[in-house]
Amino acid sequence: MSNEVVRVGLLGYGNVGGALVELLEGRRDVIQARAGLRLEVVRVAVRHPSLPRGDALPSDRLTDDPLSIVNDPDVDVVVEVMGGIEPARGLITAALTNGKPVVTANKELLANHGSELFAAADAAGRDLLFEAAVAGGIPLIRPLRESLAGEAIRRVMGIVNGTTNYILTKMSEEGATYAAALTEAQELGYAERDPTADVEGFDAGAKAAIIASIAFGVRVTAGDVYHEGISKVTVEDIAVAHRLGYVVKLLAIAERDEVTDEVGVRVHPAMVPEAHPLATVRHSYNAVFVEGAAVGSLMFYGRGAGGLPTASAVLGDLIDAAVNLGKQSHAPLGSFAEPKFRPIDETRSEYYLPLDVVDRPGVLHAVTGVFAQHDVSIRTAEQHGLGPEARLVFITHDAREADVQATLRDLRQLEVVRRVGGVLRVVGA
Amino acid sequence: MSNEVVRVGLLGYGNVGGALVELLEGRRDVIQARAGLRLEVVRVAVRHPSLPRGDALPSDRLTDDPLSIVNDPDVDVVVEVMGGIEPARGLITAALTNGKPVVTANKELLANHGSELFAAADAAGRDLLFEAAVAGGIPLIRPLRESLAGEAIRRVMGIVNGTTNYILTKMSEEGATYAAALTEAQELGYAERDPTADVEGFDAGAKAAIIASIAFGVRVTAGDVYHEGISKVTVEDIAVAHRLGYVVKLLAIAERDEVTDEVGVRVHPAMVPEAHPLATVRHSYNAVFVEGAAVGSLMFYGRGAGGLPTASAVLGDLIDAAVNLGKQSHAPLGSFAEPKFRPIDETRSEYYLPLDVVDRPGVLHAVTGVFAQHDVSIRTAEQHGLGPEARLVFITHDAREADVQATLRDLRQLEVVRRVGGVLRVVGA
Repeated sequence: MSNEVVRVGLLGYGNVGGALVELLEGRRDVIQARAGLRLEVVRVAVRHPSLPRGDALPSDRLTDDPLSIVNDPDVDVVVEVMGGIEPARGLITAALTNGKPVVTANKELLANHGSELFAAADAAGRDLLFEAAVAGGIPLIRPLRESLAGEAIRRVMGIVNGTTNYILTKMSEEGATYAAALTEAQELGYAERDPTADVEGFDAGAKAAIIASIAFGVRVTAGDVYHEGISKVTVEDIAVAHRLGYVVKLLAIAERDEVTDEVGVRVHPAMVPEAHPLATVRHSYNAVFVEGAAVGSLMFYGRGAGGLPTASAVLGDLIDAAVNLGKQSHAPLGSFAEPKFRPIDETRSEYYLPLDVVDRPGVLHAVTGVFAQHDVSIRTAEQHGLGPEARLVFITHDAREADVQATLRDLRQLEVVRRVGGVLRVVGA
Repeated sequence: MSNEVVRVGLLGYGNVGGALVELLEGRRDVIQARAGLRLEVVRVAVRHPSLPRGDALPSDRLTDDPLSIVNDPDVDVVVEVMGGIEPARGLITAALTNGKPVVTANKELLANHGSELFAAADAAGRDLLFEAAVAGGIPLIRPLRESLAGEAIRRVMGIVNGTTNYILTKMSEEGATYAAALTEAQELGYAERDPTADVEGFDAGAKAAIIASIAFGVRVTAGDVYHEGISKVTVEDIAVAHRLGYVVKLLAIAERDEVTDEVGVRVHPAMVPEAHPLATVRHSYNAVFVEGAAVGSLMFYGRGAGGLPTASAVLGDLIDAAVNLGKQSHAPLGSFAEPKFRPIDETRSEYYLPLDVVDRPGVLHAVTGVFAQHDVSIRTAEQHGLGPEARLVFITHDAREADVQATLRDLRQLEVVRRVGGVLRVVGA
């Protein structure tokens, strides 16, 4: 058993950083036995070094100058858990240039500047590992990069935002309204005071960009991802979906067309058949469903957030980076091609469309005329309620997004349509 | 992009070997782009080299002498997909000794001689990779070894036998009898003509041994695993379980007690709560549920068998082994300690116990007296049927296996008990 000490510099000491220090402390002997090395956190960049941190972290290891850590010759490996784009981006680049492998949990940074950082890592011949940046503690990036390195991946669909999955579960299982479920999620600390990033799909979109990059080996940034959130989903929509055998989930979807090589990346609420493995993912859990040509269907399930689960993913990467550094080796990220994007207008799906309508003769005729005009074929039509509560709910056959959007545009012009509700796409059937 | 050719020697050309050659052919360019190497199958050991194999495999690459492949200096990496203990064991050892990394899908061999082969690999400084040996195409071994290297794993529970899961799904969803479901599985090719290895839990036991070894870093062989099969499970048991909110699954369970450091590995049918992720794994799919101290609950789901899914796992390992060989590096398997086994008698669980009884006054009193005598506390008791069909069904509170077995022994002696049915343990609540 080797006693080689690997000196870790930690950038950021919030939830994840604190949990990581705790894990490293508790698992020191096991890590040494298994990996043949001792991981010591020798320096930590924090905002307020003078605050007391307990025994695990003596104050002489603290600094408010993160740059001094990435430039410190006595630091072997850098862990970045501060988040945000700057200064993290500059610090990671400097660390790599200085020959230090980097482990990061920074979703936002990778979703916006991933390929630039991947290139910096490969140029430096050092690891840049980021399992924790997508789906928290769930091993996903490593299986995609390594286990499935030879696999032709067709589609990845994920429940990658715990906040929205918690809200949808509450709405679905307890009949809570969107507003009530959101408030509860905020009270439990699952949702931020300003929940926009979660509920409008920005967070899931950033993760989808990273997943698509790794699954297909192409350059995708957060801005390339089409996204719709869950704020328009109603308890009634969920009830109708349930009656038809579906559950409503916010899905991040990355697809690649084998024939045209086009890549599509999108986030939106979807109706998933109850028998689909993703349908059973409840509360704040995450799961990612992967479809490959040879391997068939896979799913990876677990905790997508939280200090300890995320720190567990960081620790797995940190051990790997330290072992590789000892061998002066690294796992190359490879090149990322410029993808041909499939515009969202060209995607196809079945659609769920709810309309609040005026309750009088001829309404159904007028409404269905708009569908026919745009070549959108109806699979199921239902009418609910009476008078001012009258509601029409349609599920279409497989249809083109652009045609459905044109249908919605024209429906909004119809005098008999009082309101067009949020659309759900049927996925995974 | 490098053009380095890595020469693969293939031992065995059945379902998996054939699918691997097909995958290597179809994915050649992608593998070269991503990993910077060309994988060429240069020699293949088959039983009958004179049989035609189509264009993918010219006859001059075939031999009936596998030893000539592992000794061939023109072979860089060996893939063993012939199965069985000998000659595979000797061939893999020879290949490693000759400095060739080995990828194997051989569950039986690893479950019986794993630690000896792991030691041979580490002594030779070469990779021995075996993702395909457990749960087919599902990335499980790599996440356990790498992503969770620092994690304190408490329990791994898997549905790792597709045949029995198919049979239990048919019984559960269509009310088929065990015999009818087995016959259907045989007709579909999911079950062998002699189904013993699957239905009595031997196959799952071998996989449990490998999983326990990797998850806990201890030496576990197939013979150390307690196993019960599904042949005693009846449609009535499944119906009762369903009414109480459970599904019946054959589980492979590996547990480690953090306090005593004891390891228990067992396979038996179990009642799993309907809301548990394992409960939703249907048909011939496999899934492995992992509980770690920091990461929480994880699940890995997918195809546990079949030529292409298994070949996909072999291919992931093969690319890794080839990349490592190019760097003269390998992923050490580490040392495997001798475990302290927890005897099955000392495990605890809630138990489901069905009894066929004589329908007359005093029976329930007599039966419950036996439970009380052995300190087994009853949570639920139900009586079904009348006269010769009378049946008592009990679910106990948490109880010790030895006490339950003593209870069963005494119940069999009672004159009023006509038959003691198969026991189910309640797991995952």
